[in-house]
Amino acid sequence: MSAPTPADLVILGGGSGGYAAALRGAELGLSVVLIERDKVGGTCLHRGCIPTKALLHSAEVADLAREGEQFGVKTSLAGIDMAGVNSYKSGVTSKLYKGLQGLIKSRKITYVEGEGKLVSPTAVQVGDTTYEGAHVLLATGSYARSLPGIEIDGTRVITSDQALELERVPASVIILGGGVIGCEFASVWKSFGADVTIVEGLPHLVPAEDEASSKLLERAYRKRKIDFSLGSRVSKVATTEDGVKVDLENGRSYEAEIVLVAVGRGPVSQGLGYEEAGVAMDRGFVLVDEYCQTNVPTISAVGDLIPTLQLAHVGFGEGILVAERLAGLPVVPIDYAGVPRVTYSEPEVASVGLTEAQAKEKYGEVQVVTYDLAGNGKSQILKTAGAVKLVRATDGPVVGVHMVGSRVGELIAEAQLIYNWEALPDEVASLIHPHPTMSEAVGEAHLALAGKPLHSHG
Amino acid sequence: MSAPTPADLVILGGGSGGYAAALRGAELGLSVVLIERDKVGGTCLHRGCIPTKALLHSAEVADLAREGEQFGVKTSLAGIDMAGVNSYKSGVTSKLYKGLQGLIKSRKITYVEGEGKLVSPTAVQVGDTTYEGAHVLLATGSYARSLPGIEIDGTRVITSDQALELERVPASVIILGGGVIGCEFASVWKSFGADVTIVEGLPHLVPAEDEASSKLLERAYRKRKIDFSLGSRVSKVATTEDGVKVDLENGRSYEAEIVLVAVGRGPVSQGLGYEEAGVAMDRGFVLVDEYCQTNVPTISAVGDLIPTLQLAHVGFGEGILVAERLAGLPVVPIDYAGVPRVTYSEPEVASVGLTEAQAKEKYGEVQVVTYDLAGNGKSQILKTAGAVKLVRATDGPVVGVHMVGSRVGELIAEAQLIYNWEALPDEVASLIHPHPTMSEAVGEAHLALAGKPLHSHG
Repeated sequence: MSAPTPADLVILGGGSGGYAAALRGAELGLSVVLIERDKVGGTCLHRGCIPTKALLHSAEVADLAREGEQFGVKTSLAGIDMAGVNSYKSGVTSKLYKGLQGLIKSRKITYVEGEGKLVSPTAVQVGDTTYEGAHVLLATGSYARSLPGIEIDGTRVITSDQALELERVPASVIILGGGVIGCEFASVWKSFGADVTIVEGLPHLVPAEDEASSKLLERAYRKRKIDFSLGSRVSKVATTEDGVKVDLENGRSYEAEIVLVAVGRGPVSQGLGYEEAGVAMDRGFVLVDEYCQTNVPTISAVGDLIPTLQLAHVGFGEGILVAERLAGLPVVPIDYAGVPRVTYSEPEVASVGLTEAQAKEKYGEVQVVTYDLAGNGKSQILKTAGAVKLVRATDGPVVGVHMVGSRVGELIAEAQLIYNWEALPDEVASLIHPHPTMSEAVGEAHLALAGKPLHSHG
Repeated sequence: MSAPTPADLVILGGGSGGYAAALRGAELGLSVVLIERDKVGGTCLHRGCIPTKALLHSAEVADLAREGEQFGVKTSLAGIDMAGVNSYKSGVTSKLYKGLQGLIKSRKITYVEGEGKLVSPTAVQVGDTTYEGAHVLLATGSYARSLPGIEIDGTRVITSDQALELERVPASVIILGGGVIGCEFASVWKSFGADVTIVEGLPHLVPAEDEASSKLLERAYRKRKIDFSLGSRVSKVATTEDGVKVDLENGRSYEAEIVLVAVGRGPVSQGLGYEEAGVAMDRGFVLVDEYCQTNVPTISAVGDLIPTLQLAHVGFGEGILVAERLAGLPVVPIDYAGVPRVTYSEPEVASVGLTEAQAKEKYGEVQVVTYDLAGNGKSQILKTAGAVKLVRATDGPVVGVHMVGSRVGELIAEAQLIYNWEALPDEVASLIHPHPTMSEAVGEAHLALAGKPLHSHG
């Protein structure tokens, strides 16, 4: 059986990339079919960004209650009620899920629930029904990957999928992987009272960040007594009578109640007919040009399925780009360096643009300024430590902004404009930021970089 | 006795405006004398911005502990330890005070502690010493004003000065004035457990803000059970046996343990020799041109002493402007509409640019978009309500940004760039904000204003 008319766009996967393309496409007058096997919103809404940030907020509440006395507030923390945490978390996701379903409906998108498979360069089959489209968008996302030789059993050795459903706070956890996901869970569990050890094969936590940010996060984690081992890989993970034992290549070993495997996410692309339709791929990722177009003219791909930054807002951006391109609007490629990155741990790590190392490689000489949050009033009020670091091509615009500190994830939006609009330090420095906010640290860093430090020794 | 050499710049008053001029002037090679009768840092650091924000953070800690269960965290709040709150607050201010003293010292500014008086267009006298300067900057700031007929007794009827030193949480408070200061103290005391009533003569709380923001704050305060009376002025304040009674012109009356008078701040300019030196003044304020120059060529004035926005960061900006002008650098007048305003209550209110009413007056037709935080993931996680409202001159740049919600004060920095750089909605909309942050609400509002709403019905 075939759907009555071919649609302008058939989208396989209703996560961030897929639904953004659907919403924008429909808005531009395209007829859109959106196919999702689980729930619209995908990993981000149901098993990623949103639920982890709810856990991180519960963690913040726990930390403040534990440390209330330093603020003169007589608080106490009797423990974590994981059923309560999970119900709060589900409350947030259900509300957003309902909102998203309402949007999909209001834009008259044909929503199909089911397992879809690409059966031709212009068709996706779901059960007995084939959905024909002038264009097909692949947006099947990613899954939590493991390492060779490590079996995810779902109870002792888990991924973020199970970690989000845990009904207790584990006494101890070993986290394999010190990237964004690993560092966020480490932060949550430590705040919830667990003993946490992170194992990262590279020399630093959040290794994709500027080295200065990694070091500041490591300092903060040391202070929080989150243990970590850097620069050595895992050789073996074995379950014991009452937990798990992890051996490292450097000879050390750790034991804990559970192991979280957070070594990255792989593309969901097997058995979906992509190769059969002639779509070029690399290690499971669908390859695209800078317009998210595959080698097959009628097929595009977006989100975690393609080898760009695996971030929900990258998915949004790519989905919008494809919808606008198909609707005949002029589009420009995404500058991926200009996409802000945030690790929502305590403290947070946020950045946009190039790291100092990348900028040196690109521009040769660079100018760097680091403004310590010790000089920032609001940071002192929050009792957070960290810094704002700016990187500038010599006498040129700001090409990298890197921050560590509580709540700095909200400050990167301003930095996103600075980077993408190629602002000179003086153009930012001339705008005095509101006092007393953490955003002043961004202003002060630009004042210093413009050669006129105010509240710093410059 | 006269100081050895005339300085380039003698500054009377070491608050935000005065010390910023001193720091920037010294940096530019001017010889600077900075005279302060109390402590460098002024109202903002010692009796204003910083200590109130410390109280507000203690209040946040108290709220989260009180409401921890809704986040699955078993917390309890046994009460407020005001000695602890005050020691936390003093800890923050002393640390920043030390840092500021270090900066002043490192830039080789001649710091003079004492009561200064202008004795000629080029001289300030402190005790027996006269400090001659090629230029004098008046920066004597402001004091907490009262209303005619209301006597500040410092115990039952107090100003923010005494409110910041209170050693107990009052059982009940009436706050005269629903502006920034009144609304911030209302927020603190309510979180600390007091019964709070605000009396505002104008029809809205934070009446300088866009009416939509005022209404959102009022809704939030109603939900928090902060009582308020709008649109009627006070006719009488009388102390009773165990408290204070406030009568309004509309016939209503309120009783409480204390009354906070928060009706604004008046300039500190009496008996300081300003009039004698020929400085033009209006109701105590020193009058200046757009370069902060008075009618006396050798005298400038900045900060709360002049009739511009009474904000610390305005003082910084004005102080820097004067220093740069005197050092011979090219300077441009401050666009005061482009200065961000923040009320750090729970929820916060933040804005930059014109209100809708002001924009209509200036541009005739305007376009307005309001993005409800109900659609913003991070806001749902924080359980905050509010909105981001944008005002645009029809088909032109964004001329006003208005926000209400927890922590939105940090988001106004991005809006400050948008307003001051005259960004078109589409220029912001094309940059997809980091997910999930509150800053996305700013992005979504711009997407909607650019005619391509993503997570909203547009």
